[in-house]
Amino acid sequence: NDHVTFSCKSCILSVWQFCKEDSNRVIFSLKVGFAVLAVSLLILCRKPYQFFGPDIIWSILTVAMMCEYTVGATFNRGLNRALGSLLAGVIAVSVAELALKTGRIAEPIIIGFSIFLVGAVTSFMKLWPSLVPYEYGFRVILFTYCLIIVSGYRMGDPIRTAMDRLYSIAIGGIVAVAVNVLILPIWAGEQLHKELVSNFTSVADAFEECVRKYLEDDGKEHPEFTNAVMDEFPDEPAYRKCRSTLDSTAKIETLATSAKWEPPHGRFQNFSYPWSEYVKVDAVLRYCAYEVMALHGVLHSEIQAPYNLRIAFKKEIQDATSDASELVRRLGKDICTMRRSLKTCLLKRVHASTERLQHAIDVHSYLLTTESTTFSNLSNHMPEHDNKFLQENPDPPLQAEYSYHELMRKQSRRLYSWPSREIDAFEEERGFSANFVPRMKELESTAALSLATFTSLLIEFVARLDHLVEAVDKLSRVAKFKQEAL
Amino acid sequence: NDHVTFSCKSCILSVWQFCKEDSNRVIFSLKVGFAVLAVSLLILCRKPYQFFGPDIIWSILTVAMMCEYTVGATFNRGLNRALGSLLAGVIAVSVAELALKTGRIAEPIIIGFSIFLVGAVTSFMKLWPSLVPYEYGFRVILFTYCLIIVSGYRMGDPIRTAMDRLYSIAIGGIVAVAVNVLILPIWAGEQLHKELVSNFTSVADAFEECVRKYLEDDGKEHPEFTNAVMDEFPDEPAYRKCRSTLDSTAKIETLATSAKWEPPHGRFQNFSYPWSEYVKVDAVLRYCAYEVMALHGVLHSEIQAPYNLRIAFKKEIQDATSDASELVRRLGKDICTMRRSLKTCLLKRVHASTERLQHAIDVHSYLLTTESTTFSNLSNHMPEHDNKFLQENPDPPLQAEYSYHELMRKQSRRLYSWPSREIDAFEEERGFSANFVPRMKELESTAALSLATFTSLLIEFVARLDHLVEAVDKLSRVAKFKQEAL
Repeated sequence: NDHVTFSCKSCILSVWQFCKEDSNRVIFSLKVGFAVLAVSLLILCRKPYQFFGPDIIWSILTVAMMCEYTVGATFNRGLNRALGSLLAGVIAVSVAELALKTGRIAEPIIIGFSIFLVGAVTSFMKLWPSLVPYEYGFRVILFTYCLIIVSGYRMGDPIRTAMDRLYSIAIGGIVAVAVNVLILPIWAGEQLHKELVSNFTSVADAFEECVRKYLEDDGKEHPEFTNAVMDEFPDEPAYRKCRSTLDSTAKIETLATSAKWEPPHGRFQNFSYPWSEYVKVDAVLRYCAYEVMALHGVLHSEIQAPYNLRIAFKKEIQDATSDASELVRRLGKDICTMRRSLKTCLLKRVHASTERLQHAIDVHSYLLTTESTTFSNLSNHMPEHDNKFLQENPDPPLQAEYSYHELMRKQSRRLYSWPSREIDAFEEERGFSANFVPRMKELESTAALSLATFTSLLIEFVARLDHLVEAVDKLSRVAKFKQEAL
Repeated sequence: NDHVTFSCKSCILSVWQFCKEDSNRVIFSLKVGFAVLAVSLLILCRKPYQFFGPDIIWSILTVAMMCEYTVGATFNRGLNRALGSLLAGVIAVSVAELALKTGRIAEPIIIGFSIFLVGAVTSFMKLWPSLVPYEYGFRVILFTYCLIIVSGYRMGDPIRTAMDRLYSIAIGGIVAVAVNVLILPIWAGEQLHKELVSNFTSVADAFEECVRKYLEDDGKEHPEFTNAVMDEFPDEPAYRKCRSTLDSTAKIETLATSAKWEPPHGRFQNFSYPWSEYVKVDAVLRYCAYEVMALHGVLHSEIQAPYNLRIAFKKEIQDATSDASELVRRLGKDICTMRRSLKTCLLKRVHASTERLQHAIDVHSYLLTTESTTFSNLSNHMPEHDNKFLQENPDPPLQAEYSYHELMRKQSRRLYSWPSREIDAFEEERGFSANFVPRMKELESTAALSLATFTSLLIEFVARLDHLVEAVDKLSRVAKFKQEAL
């Protein structure tokens, strides 16, 4: 009994959470309820029912079919339905008139053949790539045509049937559109706008999170990159968001298609607002996200640069990262507030800090390839300014806590475990393993190069930001965002 | 006139091409035509029409709504329709009975309120994430409920109305399912199977293409990575295919959902065939594709390793690439033929050639960081075995054709052009450009590290193949693929 009460409680709680997350959901539900009630009243009340006749029940079907979440989608579906019904009506009436003239015997044959033809043609057309968005329209043509011509055949007078159906559909459509537009409208454009802005945030978050984890990872705990955790990474919420950004292409495109049907509204006052530019900006942003995915791959790959080496470049990496993610956030914010600000300054800063990182990597590039990248040797090998460079570093490597040997042991174990699946391959090689130890060392050195990979990908991310800035700039020009005062 | 004839011709040609690409499209269209014809005959012929009554026209609507491309989707939609109608019928009849008992005045109020409630609740439920696939079912509940209760109110006898509607829907459903399943069925499972196999091929192709272009690119022609070409890369068909693989998540998932509804058929004879494993394998494959995207990013990034350096590792890179892509193709082929073969041998070869690449990079890693990576200097700097290493290379760098200076000039011009957008930033820095020349050099050296990035990503790609092999292995175990004789 207690258990039932508890699960009931948690169920109500999750529904409440779901509503609170986005109150539009509740608004939408109530609106649909209201819309069906409105058309039902036409039938429940005696007067309108007598006026419209029993065909008015078709308007209920129309409302149920047309009520979509966003205004744009409702318009789109409404247009599909209206045009589909109209076209079907015209064809049906002409075929029926033609069939009537051919006489009693030929009539059903012509009607049957025309039904087959309409079914085949509409089904074929809705598979055609550029017509896929109008799939619903073709369905409407098909069943409206069949209904009109068949009931016309049975009840005579196909024109009457067609007209009755058409205006009951029109009534349903008008009610659905009116309720959707006039009562707390949910605009697809607004949704698209928000979605794009949140994509910017999640890419920036994921990028920062990825770099932070890379610098934090001291080789102590390193969950193996198995299939089991591959999808999850429970401690990386931003990464998961970024992945869902990559999968949201279809959603963005649907919203943009819907948004094109919407009249100017709210913040989007100019006609022919460039919704397609949103899709393009999202595509460029996705290119940046691919780079984040690659960085994430390096973070979880089994070959890792030693912790002390990573720490040596910590400051440069952090600077470049925070500048880059600030730029991405700023771009998102500019879109959000629909302002057009000069990003030159920020972009310059990102480039400068990235160049500093490049410079640092370059000057110390021999670190990436020396035979032993141990911390103690490092200091010996280094010229004076390098030593200073390491000392300048605000977060010194945790020498005290982890002895070098401990660290290296862990490092080697991990390196040795690559490639992970084929243990027997190793066993085999051990037979003639004269070169077993040197091979270890060489892997170690390649491991140091993984830092180069990480920074290269980071730099590539920054390089792609140029294109992102350009794309956002184009959007803000075409959409006539307000120019910010200098 | 000629123009019209020509465009008409090209139109017919493209339709013909579209049909030839996948003959299922034509089959599907004809099947839909046949299905609507079949139900229409029930009305066009006198006998069945007299037997079933005028409500039979609802079966046409059902057929038009239920005919989906694949068998699984038809079943899914049919079940949605059947359960939705049934549920709506039950609720409607009980509410109607209840309303009847409350008397003439309260009846319309109760009915109106119930319509509102059903509209709001179904609309809310279809927004709930786990119920989204049943969206159509909720729509059916809504309009069936409204139709039954409203026409019941107007015509009395709601049970009669409900029953008439339900069996005309059942007739429509049976016809739609029978035509879809019995006449040349298009199985979602088969489509999913093919789609997954083709994804394997396109990832392998894109990987090979990307590496080939990397090794071919001699810095002569290098289209700038602008927004304009970003989406296109006309000379990289495999890359575009790979991108569409990344965007096909939704399609794969829809097919898997549909496939679950299908009975055993064709090659997929066991019940509860593990279609969800297909989705998992596709997810792992997508992880490999992300790595290809990153490789592609390096290929088109503006910082490039000198041609002669890339050429020095050509053989190793090519070996690793061809082995890895062969493994991917082989995995695809194994899924295609539903066989389970031992991939240990292939996997070992991939690991061995990848290790050779790693070894080569490691031994020559100083090449990546020496001050000048010129070809002439290279030979001087190198110990004897390195010289041999370069001579062993079957494709010697094209010294004769491009002089070193020419090459370097191109290289520097390109390097200088990074970062590409902010020319003025450079102009500014030129003011105090005491360190202008050294900066050039340092970029040059970082450029050599881009080779390390490329190979690291390549190695990471190979590392992910382990997981791919594992995922495919799991699929072949669960799906009981035939074990190949050893």
